[in-house]
Amino acid sequence: MGMKCIGVDIGGTSVKIGLFEVTGELLDKWEVETRKEEGGKYILPDVASSIKSRTAEKGIDLKTEVKGVGLGVPGPVLPDGYVETCVNLGWRKLNPQEELSALLDGIRVRSGNDANVAALGEMWQGGGKGYSDLVMITLGTGVGGGVILNQKIVAGKHGLGGEIGHIHVRDEEWEHCNCGGIGCVEQIGSATGIAREARRKLANSDKPSALRELGDTVTAKDVLDAAKAGDALALEVMEVVGHYLGLALSMVVMIVDPEIFVIGGGVSKAGQFLIDVIQKHYDHFTVISPRKAKLGLATLGNDAGIYGAARLIL
Amino acid sequence: MGMKCIGVDIGGTSVKIGLFEVTGELLDKWEVETRKEEGGKYILPDVASSIKSRTAEKGIDLKTEVKGVGLGVPGPVLPDGYVETCVNLGWRKLNPQEELSALLDGIRVRSGNDANVAALGEMWQGGGKGYSDLVMITLGTGVGGGVILNQKIVAGKHGLGGEIGHIHVRDEEWEHCNCGGIGCVEQIGSATGIAREARRKLANSDKPSALRELGDTVTAKDVLDAAKAGDALALEVMEVVGHYLGLALSMVVMIVDPEIFVIGGGVSKAGQFLIDVIQKHYDHFTVISPRKAKLGLATLGNDAGIYGAARLIL
Repeated sequence: MGMKCIGVDIGGTSVKIGLFEVTGELLDKWEVETRKEEGGKYILPDVASSIKSRTAEKGIDLKTEVKGVGLGVPGPVLPDGYVETCVNLGWRKLNPQEELSALLDGIRVRSGNDANVAALGEMWQGGGKGYSDLVMITLGTGVGGGVILNQKIVAGKHGLGGEIGHIHVRDEEWEHCNCGGIGCVEQIGSATGIAREARRKLANSDKPSALRELGDTVTAKDVLDAAKAGDALALEVMEVVGHYLGLALSMVVMIVDPEIFVIGGGVSKAGQFLIDVIQKHYDHFTVISPRKAKLGLATLGNDAGIYGAARLIL
Repeated sequence: MGMKCIGVDIGGTSVKIGLFEVTGELLDKWEVETRKEEGGKYILPDVASSIKSRTAEKGIDLKTEVKGVGLGVPGPVLPDGYVETCVNLGWRKLNPQEELSALLDGIRVRSGNDANVAALGEMWQGGGKGYSDLVMITLGTGVGGGVILNQKIVAGKHGLGGEIGHIHVRDEEWEHCNCGGIGCVEQIGSATGIAREARRKLANSDKPSALRELGDTVTAKDVLDAAKAGDALALEVMEVVGHYLGLALSMVVMIVDPEIFVIGGGVSKAGQFLIDVIQKHYDHFTVISPRKAKLGLATLGNDAGIYGAARLIL
């Protein structure tokens, strides 16, 4: 048995924890509840005691057999690990990396923003395996992003690195995004955004569509399923989505020019169909060069966070 | 006297060469003609013999007193120095870095795209001095860009890193950009673009303006001078320019989040007035965070290329 490492992915409802060989093999994974009460003060002690009991159970000595613990945090993390606020967890002004290390007898702990960390996970053992320069875009409830250059996360000097979901792409938007801006990628390319776009199209046209009977309950999955089945209105919605996602990727190309884009999140379950919709518009906005980053799918699903967190300390 | 380094900035009409102390002091600079005939085959031999004679004149031994030579190339350069084509020089399929090294008895030579190299120069001794993560945008005949993270150029995997001028920002554009795209930053924010925008505004309004008598000969400098003097139409033009440049910078923020933007090129001679016009729109598109990269001016002018080229080999 070789050296181990541990990846911790803190989410709003549960914390995922994975135990890995440093070579990338996932040995065990489990979850603990995210107790957000009292400013999230129980979260890190819960994580620490869970790690201690699980490793003890397996006869693994934390001090000598575990290289360190990586931590994915659902909010901005400064280069030294400091978190100003993490709304999802109730945290304010703390350094979770230092605290967790103290709770685990001084073991090495490294942390990063969860979307950036997921990108690192996909680079290590997922859809970006074998690449050193990749950009991940996660299409879930929101749109997250992570930029990896030379195998390292580009977190940015103010924690805004990889915030691809909040690039402004649509001038004619009128509703505000959660970030305070208007016309962000997230407002169109997230699962929420795709459903909203469908509701708008349904309201503004009389075109027959399988989505019509769903009305306001329509989901991104409904739209993608209908589009795959050839539903004209659903295809129109996906053209809009593909336009803005392809545009956003073209912007990334002109700034950091990665080797590959890895597309993940719930929406990416639509697979190659989604890639094809995005690819068409991506090519349109990058006529400057036929040689550019290819598009691929994420493969680790919800485990990307624990993989990436573990990779942080290698 | 300490160790020296040499920076070479190859342009379409002349090659600028600078001799530096490795500490950043410019000791001497001179130019040689860019002979583009016969596929640009004379350019590198001309550079090599100029370097040899100038250093000999000064009693500097290339082998023992010069750390190396850096080279800025006006086109895409792959990570190993290979240049597929460089239209401005007539070059096709060559590795200027290897060739120049061979011509200079094996001295260490490193190369990069000229816009990226200029950004490195501004980081070393210019408007970005003291910063490790900066993005330069050069507003000249075109719009160039350079991304520096952790004191290193992000050239990109296909030579597209920092091509900020070719980010698509304007959906309603109808003319094509030189790159083949439509609605690029360069079509609005370059000197050429600003003049074109003014011609369009003049043609589409009857508003009185000092620019009207200039007609089709109006230049970016005319527009900026008139805007500073309060000319309403010129101010409208600069609002459009500021809108799209501010938008482009906001996109960079959401991807790499640098410490500072350094704005250079002929247009930047308008100074703080230009910064203020851009800042307003930049703030509008980055409401997500009050903490973000500041805007500053380049200070090295046309010497940024030789500074950056010299810095390449340190």
